[in-house]
Amino acid sequence: MRMVDLIAKKRDGGTLTKQEIDWLITAYVNEEVPDYQMSAFLMATYFKGMTDEEQAALAFAMLNSGDRLDLSEIPGIKVDKHSTGGVGDKISIPLTPLVACLGVPVPMISGRGLGHTGGTLDKLESIPGFNVNLSESAFRAQVKTIKQAIVSASGDLAPADRRIYALRDVTATVESIPLIASSIMSKKIASGTNALVFDVKVGNGAFMKTADQAEKLAQALVAIAKQAGVKAVALLTDMNQPLGVTIGNSLEIAESIAILKDRGPKDVRKLTITEAAHMLVLGGKAPDLETAIGMAEDALRDGRALAAFKQLIAAQGGDPIVVDNPKLLPQAEYKIPVTAATAGYVTAIDTNALGLAVMQLGGGRAKKDDALDLAVGLVLHKKVGTPVAEGETLAMIHASQPTAAAVAQLVQAAFTIGDQAPAKQPLIQKILPQN
Amino acid sequence: MRMVDLIAKKRDGGTLTKQEIDWLITAYVNEEVPDYQMSAFLMATYFKGMTDEEQAALAFAMLNSGDRLDLSEIPGIKVDKHSTGGVGDKISIPLTPLVACLGVPVPMISGRGLGHTGGTLDKLESIPGFNVNLSESAFRAQVKTIKQAIVSASGDLAPADRRIYALRDVTATVESIPLIASSIMSKKIASGTNALVFDVKVGNGAFMKTADQAEKLAQALVAIAKQAGVKAVALLTDMNQPLGVTIGNSLEIAESIAILKDRGPKDVRKLTITEAAHMLVLGGKAPDLETAIGMAEDALRDGRALAAFKQLIAAQGGDPIVVDNPKLLPQAEYKIPVTAATAGYVTAIDTNALGLAVMQLGGGRAKKDDALDLAVGLVLHKKVGTPVAEGETLAMIHASQPTAAAVAQLVQAAFTIGDQAPAKQPLIQKILPQN
Repeated sequence: MRMVDLIAKKRDGGTLTKQEIDWLITAYVNEEVPDYQMSAFLMATYFKGMTDEEQAALAFAMLNSGDRLDLSEIPGIKVDKHSTGGVGDKISIPLTPLVACLGVPVPMISGRGLGHTGGTLDKLESIPGFNVNLSESAFRAQVKTIKQAIVSASGDLAPADRRIYALRDVTATVESIPLIASSIMSKKIASGTNALVFDVKVGNGAFMKTADQAEKLAQALVAIAKQAGVKAVALLTDMNQPLGVTIGNSLEIAESIAILKDRGPKDVRKLTITEAAHMLVLGGKAPDLETAIGMAEDALRDGRALAAFKQLIAAQGGDPIVVDNPKLLPQAEYKIPVTAATAGYVTAIDTNALGLAVMQLGGGRAKKDDALDLAVGLVLHKKVGTPVAEGETLAMIHASQPTAAAVAQLVQAAFTIGDQAPAKQPLIQKILPQN
Repeated sequence: MRMVDLIAKKRDGGTLTKQEIDWLITAYVNEEVPDYQMSAFLMATYFKGMTDEEQAALAFAMLNSGDRLDLSEIPGIKVDKHSTGGVGDKISIPLTPLVACLGVPVPMISGRGLGHTGGTLDKLESIPGFNVNLSESAFRAQVKTIKQAIVSASGDLAPADRRIYALRDVTATVESIPLIASSIMSKKIASGTNALVFDVKVGNGAFMKTADQAEKLAQALVAIAKQAGVKAVALLTDMNQPLGVTIGNSLEIAESIAILKDRGPKDVRKLTITEAAHMLVLGGKAPDLETAIGMAEDALRDGRALAAFKQLIAAQGGDPIVVDNPKLLPQAEYKIPVTAATAGYVTAIDTNALGLAVMQLGGGRAKKDDALDLAVGLVLHKKVGTPVAEGETLAMIHASQPTAAAVAQLVQAAFTIGDQAPAKQPLIQKILPQN
């Protein structure tokens, strides 16, 4: 087999066989296929796409390039959740203890933030002592004992994906649905979960800007999961404004704690309960979604989910006292209000810009090895649809520096204020597979 | 400037500025842009194309990456000719002395064969002693003295193109009109010629399979030449069958000699005279094409062109006696006829297959450093439109091995024989720019 022929086949819109895709990934990992051929193949794939079979074969080939966690000794149906990334998306944090306290084991392997998006692991690290780097055996033991763990990938899961992802990043081939889907799934299948809930974000703060793109990605994820024998549900959810009212690591932990105390912003609460309910159904702990929603609401109300979160923190070396007193989380020294220049309604929020604003404050990474300031971020006082008076606070900047003029300008410009209240957009736009 | 942004711009159908293209080529030559980013850019260009301005900027950027021949000390308008490559295309060989003997200096920089196509330099090397590797000063001096030279590129013409071409070859990005056009033009402008005749081949033995593709390439070549201040004419010519009746290095020299003796196949003669006439007009030696055609016909008839060819051979170290006695050229030991299985008319010839057959005989290269057998090749007894009886010879294989069963099968299969004579196709399909 010659790589140039496979590139030409994809370039001309052909469909690669499983054998061809296996050969391509193996040869790439063995450095028989150089980066310059792989990047041409990736660009051809960007333009010509892949069939369901091709993207599944690619996911499996990348999966087979590395280790695979064996979680079979943990009883029950293990259910993980994956979000495609957004701004203010802290759902994993209240979700994990909520689902775990209702009996479903959640072996969650999470990531760090990059660019405008935050990462669950970074947020958890704003809890003093919290350790996300567990060994494989410690991870397994913890999920067995307390039915939950949130960790970074240990071992060598899908190394082919890691190399290809780095190459995509510098060759403008990130935004390809089959490449995104096979990348996610190679790691998720390797992590040994039995079922998955996907939260595919759509809107101006997400990688998928349109409902059409997001639905294609959701279909791809569900299709690959099916081929892997992993049960999966994908939710398409709105990312045309941040989730909740906080963006920034310790601010988002505080908001997560509020949710677990049966308070907090309605959108975060609704998405947490909905995702939890799907996980309970997939995990065999609820007969249907309605029952599952009731179970999740009860566990938030009676404090079981909150207790489970304390248990999670303690198990991973953190101090659970932050749950009782969130002020013990890193606090920013300066709080700088951003005000509305005119009166009206917030008609749109440039979500990507708010994510970048937090990055500029030091709360996010421009490059992979940037250090984070866990205290900084934004608290939104107004969201889409809210009326606002001239001079009223739109958002509060939490900063470690006394002046943040450039960020304030960015935040102010991210809010569009119009004369009329905009039409309400549903938070959850679609659920796949549809019955 | 970041390469990933330029890749994304091209990927999204954007138009790069001259500054961006200059930066890209300079950074690539300086190894600040790695091959894996260049190959992604090339694939994006394959899909999204380039504007006239972009492809000209690319040609000039590659041109400026290396040396440029200065032919200004040679009096007169220097005119070169470039063919995009075909099978049996020996036109440059009779053309150069024909044009030179009529007073137009021809500083021809030619190439070698690869794959199914032959190369002028290889063909000339079948003349004992012929040296195609002249120094720049020897090349200049020879064109000044005898108005002609056919050499390989000396010096470091367009090194960026050389590296990019090698990359395209292994990343399935050869077949892109702006990349082909800028590659050709970077070298041709660097060679210092004042005017150019392009022979853009179209058909099953050419890189451009359709008239539409060929015309686009011709337009691109003429447009870049115009921007470079180089006068240019492009002929679209048929390559749905080999040119003339010979394919193979010394066989094609013998056919070229026949043309210069005012004999030889009609198609080779017609194309030689037509291209010569355009060169004479571009070179200011004829007022119009009709006059130029008459001048060329005269020079073939009265032996001036033949004498000029002897002069060319002698100047480059070869023995001109081969002109008087072509049997002194390398001769193949075995001549194996390929016969027709059925009677009828030759309705089509798979020209690419015949080129590959000669390659298999040893007369062409699969890889760049393959050695050649200059004696071997094919002599066609039948061409498209000719009637043929069952068992009649279609072609004669000239081989160095007594058996050539696989090649014979390939050659026989390359001829399609049908009941009816096909419609005649014009040899010269179009001439650009049109008046």
